[in-house]
Amino acid sequence: MNVDGRSTRSIALAADGWAVEIIDQTRLPHEFVPRRLESLDDAAEAIRDMWVRGAPLIGATAAYGMALAMGADPSDENVIHAGEILLATRPTAVNLRWAVDDMRARLGALAPEARAAAAYGRAAQVCDEDVAINRAIGEHGLGIIREAWDRRGAGRERVHILTHCNAGWLATVDWGTALAPIYLAHDEGLPIHVWVDETRPRNQGAHLTAWELGRHGVPHTLIVDNAGGHLMQRGRVDLCITGTDRTTAAGDVCNKIGTYLKALAAHDNGVPFYVALPGPTIDWTIEDGLADVPIEERDGGEVAEVMGRAADGTIRSVHIAPPDCPIANPAFDVTPARLVTGLITERGVCAASREGLLSLYPERHNRPGSGRGE
Amino acid sequence: MNVDGRSTRSIALAADGWAVEIIDQTRLPHEFVPRRLESLDDAAEAIRDMWVRGAPLIGATAAYGMALAMGADPSDENVIHAGEILLATRPTAVNLRWAVDDMRARLGALAPEARAAAAYGRAAQVCDEDVAINRAIGEHGLGIIREAWDRRGAGRERVHILTHCNAGWLATVDWGTALAPIYLAHDEGLPIHVWVDETRPRNQGAHLTAWELGRHGVPHTLIVDNAGGHLMQRGRVDLCITGTDRTTAAGDVCNKIGTYLKALAAHDNGVPFYVALPGPTIDWTIEDGLADVPIEERDGGEVAEVMGRAADGTIRSVHIAPPDCPIANPAFDVTPARLVTGLITERGVCAASREGLLSLYPERHNRPGSGRGE
Repeated sequence: MNVDGRSTRSIALAADGWAVEIIDQTRLPHEFVPRRLESLDDAAEAIRDMWVRGAPLIGATAAYGMALAMGADPSDENVIHAGEILLATRPTAVNLRWAVDDMRARLGALAPEARAAAAYGRAAQVCDEDVAINRAIGEHGLGIIREAWDRRGAGRERVHILTHCNAGWLATVDWGTALAPIYLAHDEGLPIHVWVDETRPRNQGAHLTAWELGRHGVPHTLIVDNAGGHLMQRGRVDLCITGTDRTTAAGDVCNKIGTYLKALAAHDNGVPFYVALPGPTIDWTIEDGLADVPIEERDGGEVAEVMGRAADGTIRSVHIAPPDCPIANPAFDVTPARLVTGLITERGVCAASREGLLSLYPERHNRPGSGRGE
Repeated sequence: MNVDGRSTRSIALAADGWAVEIIDQTRLPHEFVPRRLESLDDAAEAIRDMWVRGAPLIGATAAYGMALAMGADPSDENVIHAGEILLATRPTAVNLRWAVDDMRARLGALAPEARAAAAYGRAAQVCDEDVAINRAIGEHGLGIIREAWDRRGAGRERVHILTHCNAGWLATVDWGTALAPIYLAHDEGLPIHVWVDETRPRNQGAHLTAWELGRHGVPHTLIVDNAGGHLMQRGRVDLCITGTDRTTAAGDVCNKIGTYLKALAAHDNGVPFYVALPGPTIDWTIEDGLADVPIEERDGGEVAEVMGRAADGTIRSVHIAPPDCPIANPAFDVTPARLVTGLITERGVCAASREGLLSLYPERHNRPGSGRGE
């Protein structure tokens, strides 16, 4: 998408053809700091220190990390070693594991002297595949926004879309998932406006979604997470679109904490609630999201420490709780399929149900097993 | 309630019998700063700069402000003037208006030399009446907590109660409304635990509720506003109790933004959702909260600027949004009566409905008119 008029991806090969360029997302929205990765260690630092985040972008960065490693030392030992370094950065990241395993399998089958070129080629392919998937999600979701616009009928002014967290191009290589239909709608001239949940505790909405929509020129308004229900009650939301970290085979949606509350409000007010997802994030091994999806409990410091720009221009955090205050910080929740109007995938839009998903992924009939990486 | 073992009210006459002691709530939870009010201007500053907040406490501070004014100058002109000064501090505060009008009517009927003593006496009465109302709310609500404890049955460990915003003793003279049953339950030895919503954008939960529960020794855990639905899905909430700024004659509840989302989640998970209120906050002139309660839209700076304690110990705010980001900040929402299990008032617990309210306030039968101050 565009940053101040210039087409930008969240990760790309530098003009010199070997280094890799990313954006230090920890500085957003206060500073736009491109970073140049020149080594395996640079790539590992980028993932570990969360300069990059979002499953697809972490996977792409890991793939390029392997390429940078092969450029320096394409030995068998380094194929193993580089993978270990990368896997240690964020041990629970599924796409990281997938990208490293994929790279190690491919590179191990090649002679050392062929590995660097192959790794760069594969990393570029990983990125392009992500962009293609997201673009397809965008095109299928665009139809939903067009329908919402048509539904508004006479007197219509804009289509108001609410989103939670950041499922935009900063979380992927380009386009994003939930935001892909929004960018496409905006680019084709549909009058849209996005309500951006700030998304406590990490404020990805305020820090990232508001920033990327603003840079691309998409009209938007930041709100606290508490406000969405009220806006829906007053008829000020036409449509919700969120992303998801994991969707069960029955259509239950695990996503950033608070998504469930927005789905409840949408249901209570007759507002369509859609979830955008790449097929590989469907977990075909489980059905019941509430029973079978463990929810990560993260450090309470994420709640108590709020980062922002101080009056003196420095970026720092402030502590908002009493010093001795106990804090709980569940990172995700599960939105039951009954509250989800539809799932937007790269293959089309379907009902949030086993039948719906199988209509788009018929190869999954009677075939248990996990998603991406098979 | 207790602050570090010492029984404390949010407002009280000083030991010298004429000055008034409050707590500077803008410094909480980082510093406990008692303030001494010695003049009308001190009282006006306390209200205007939000050292005191919460409708009952603002009313009590205004009453004492009139007493301080009469101590300095009990003339007819000063009865008028002092009222104007106080009313200008927060023009939309209903209890402020009520307290000033009440005081002016009483004082105007007295000879100047009788006014100071009468004003101090009335201010003390305003405070004691608030305490009595809240204590009665607490006693009625205590029965609900006892029932939740009994419902837990074998294997029970604690009763988990979720609350939103601050409807505690810091918002009143003592006890609070939503927190009054919680303090009584704790004091009588029921094992309770409170989930405290941080309550964006102003973080009254993190700043005030967590602080006052902690000082009194009530077990509690701070969470982001996004987390409550997830906790209810997992059976970790037995009961919700919130306060309210305004309840309609039909039982619709206007309260801090985000309350509606918690009520939806409670309803979806079979968790009882109670609202605690003093009778005077019932607005008998309206029925339909969604149609008839205007929602205040506050400055976006409240969302973008987050106040807390920096690493260097200073209390400051940081800006969490992109510099040019549009922000909306609706301050309240309306929870429809259908989502409210019951209303806890000083006269007892009733259904959130016209019939329920009239069963406790039968004098309101066929008698339209506004609440407190009549």
